[in-house]
Amino acid sequence: MAIRIGIMGYGNIGKGIETALADYPDMELAVVFTRRNPADVKIHTSGVPVVSAGEAEKWKDKVDVLVLAGGSATDLPEQTPAYASLFNVIDTFDTHAHISEHFAKVDEVAKNHGKTAMISVGWDPGLFSLARLFGHVILPDGKDYTFWGRGVSQGHSDAIRRVPGVKDGKQYTCPVESALEAVRNGENPVLTTRDMHTRECYVVAEKGADRGTIENTIKTMPNYFADYDTTVHFISEEELKEKHSGLAHGGFVFRSGRTGVHKEHDHVMEYRLKLDSNPEFTTHVVLAYARALYRFAKEGKKGCFTVFDVPPAYLSSLSGEELRAHLL
Amino acid sequence: MAIRIGIMGYGNIGKGIETALADYPDMELAVVFTRRNPADVKIHTSGVPVVSAGEAEKWKDKVDVLVLAGGSATDLPEQTPAYASLFNVIDTFDTHAHISEHFAKVDEVAKNHGKTAMISVGWDPGLFSLARLFGHVILPDGKDYTFWGRGVSQGHSDAIRRVPGVKDGKQYTCPVESALEAVRNGENPVLTTRDMHTRECYVVAEKGADRGTIENTIKTMPNYFADYDTTVHFISEEELKEKHSGLAHGGFVFRSGRTGVHKEHDHVMEYRLKLDSNPEFTTHVVLAYARALYRFAKEGKKGCFTVFDVPPAYLSSLSGEELRAHLL
Repeated sequence: MAIRIGIMGYGNIGKGIETALADYPDMELAVVFTRRNPADVKIHTSGVPVVSAGEAEKWKDKVDVLVLAGGSATDLPEQTPAYASLFNVIDTFDTHAHISEHFAKVDEVAKNHGKTAMISVGWDPGLFSLARLFGHVILPDGKDYTFWGRGVSQGHSDAIRRVPGVKDGKQYTCPVESALEAVRNGENPVLTTRDMHTRECYVVAEKGADRGTIENTIKTMPNYFADYDTTVHFISEEELKEKHSGLAHGGFVFRSGRTGVHKEHDHVMEYRLKLDSNPEFTTHVVLAYARALYRFAKEGKKGCFTVFDVPPAYLSSLSGEELRAHLL
Repeated sequence: MAIRIGIMGYGNIGKGIETALADYPDMELAVVFTRRNPADVKIHTSGVPVVSAGEAEKWKDKVDVLVLAGGSATDLPEQTPAYASLFNVIDTFDTHAHISEHFAKVDEVAKNHGKTAMISVGWDPGLFSLARLFGHVILPDGKDYTFWGRGVSQGHSDAIRRVPGVKDGKQYTCPVESALEAVRNGENPVLTTRDMHTRECYVVAEKGADRGTIENTIKTMPNYFADYDTTVHFISEEELKEKHSGLAHGGFVFRSGRTGVHKEHDHVMEYRLKLDSNPEFTTHVVLAYARALYRFAKEGKKGCFTVFDVPPAYLSSLSGEELRAHLL
């Protein structure tokens, strides 16, 4: 029987999960929950009900894994612990600074209700976290570097849009090519924030707004832009929609370290992702881990887990024997 | 108490393990076993005994994990199953075609004797296998590509040295730059053997040997060279020793795949290693997995495992809480 997947929230991540399921034949979409009026939510999959989030409890025996597809700022901190009392849950919580707190809450609820949960699944946190962990354990005498981009940062785009006189805007985080090369060459450079990334802003100004003031306000904004080389491009609303609606992203995790009696040998481990669609790739990662989560649940594991806890074989539908024969 | 590591065989891998231990403070070298006369084997670590392999059984309660540091051709197929009756064992068995068979033998012995074993640990098989597995499960609709090099291939160097008139030789496997770029750009190229790698041979000819004949014999050798663009450079014995004694290696694993309702989004996952010393890097991987193996043994897991079975958290000496706080 296929693993029955539920989706809570039908935004980018929810839609991505629905689409991704076509590539995971051992799973099927059972239900989509929404906080909107279900009648207003049209999904792609025929025959699958869209149900009000308030009715979720009625589905607790008809869903094997519930994917919480909301945002990390306000949705997931509430939803993941709440639904861990009813379902095995998985989320993409990505506020690094609050992961420990989120984990503790979800773990407690899941343990109390005999459920299995997994948080912070995706590529960062997620695959990049694994790359960092492997770097640490294999080259303990080393340094790591994480670069992001080129891709849209939601938080920085929001910050631009809060500037007076700005109608709309998008911000790209871009790795600095020369810094990437220095790291890739094993030079172990000491890099400041400014050395690693630049920030490119595409801004639609309101009619009559002073562009010089907007540009200055953005470039000097503390935390967000002041520590970076930032460029601001004013463009039309049409151009923003046409050229900057994409969801491409990616990045690099490097570990650079030394081995040998006299530490005379340098090694560089590089993990790179180049993604046309950040939410679609993320949902593929989530479904692979949903498979593992389902197996954890079947084995009776309770509580909260992360990518660090999952034996890679659990991600695949192949048997251990097949994996060893074809992929090892 | 530190994890007590034993080493069977004091070649490149054995020496690498000894050196690497300096970076793993939770482990210590307990003993080195050798098939040579122990009096002839001088190791770096003071106070650690070198013992005849025939005496290994006496050490079975004084070693937590025995690293089998022999070759895959003839040593490991015998040694790993044999010593799995006495010790928790780990090896770097890298003959891909015989992994299933090797696994089955080791698994049976380890289970029968209540021991824990791990085979084929290193970077390929090992880290590259993990990159392939992650590629498969995250982008099921995709292709993968493994490139090796630039680095010395032992098997191909041996093949050169068997050619009549050849005194000594080294062979480098080199990835083809244009093929790497095409894969990295998501072009999903169809690549023949010749398209992916070239082979560079550095040959010391015997006095009076015909260089044309040697070059032709190498370039037309089936399986080893005939399917590749091969270059042959004749050099002096001194130059071979001076410039081609290094053990650098590395490679790339790519997964290139598509997502989306109409499969309109391309993604590229790239895992790259650039290693100054193949055996030293390999032994670092082995020690990280020896730590996991020790934990498996402590938990009472019996039988044989591979990198696919190990939760990444088991590789680190940090607690789950620390890992989530600092690396997730």
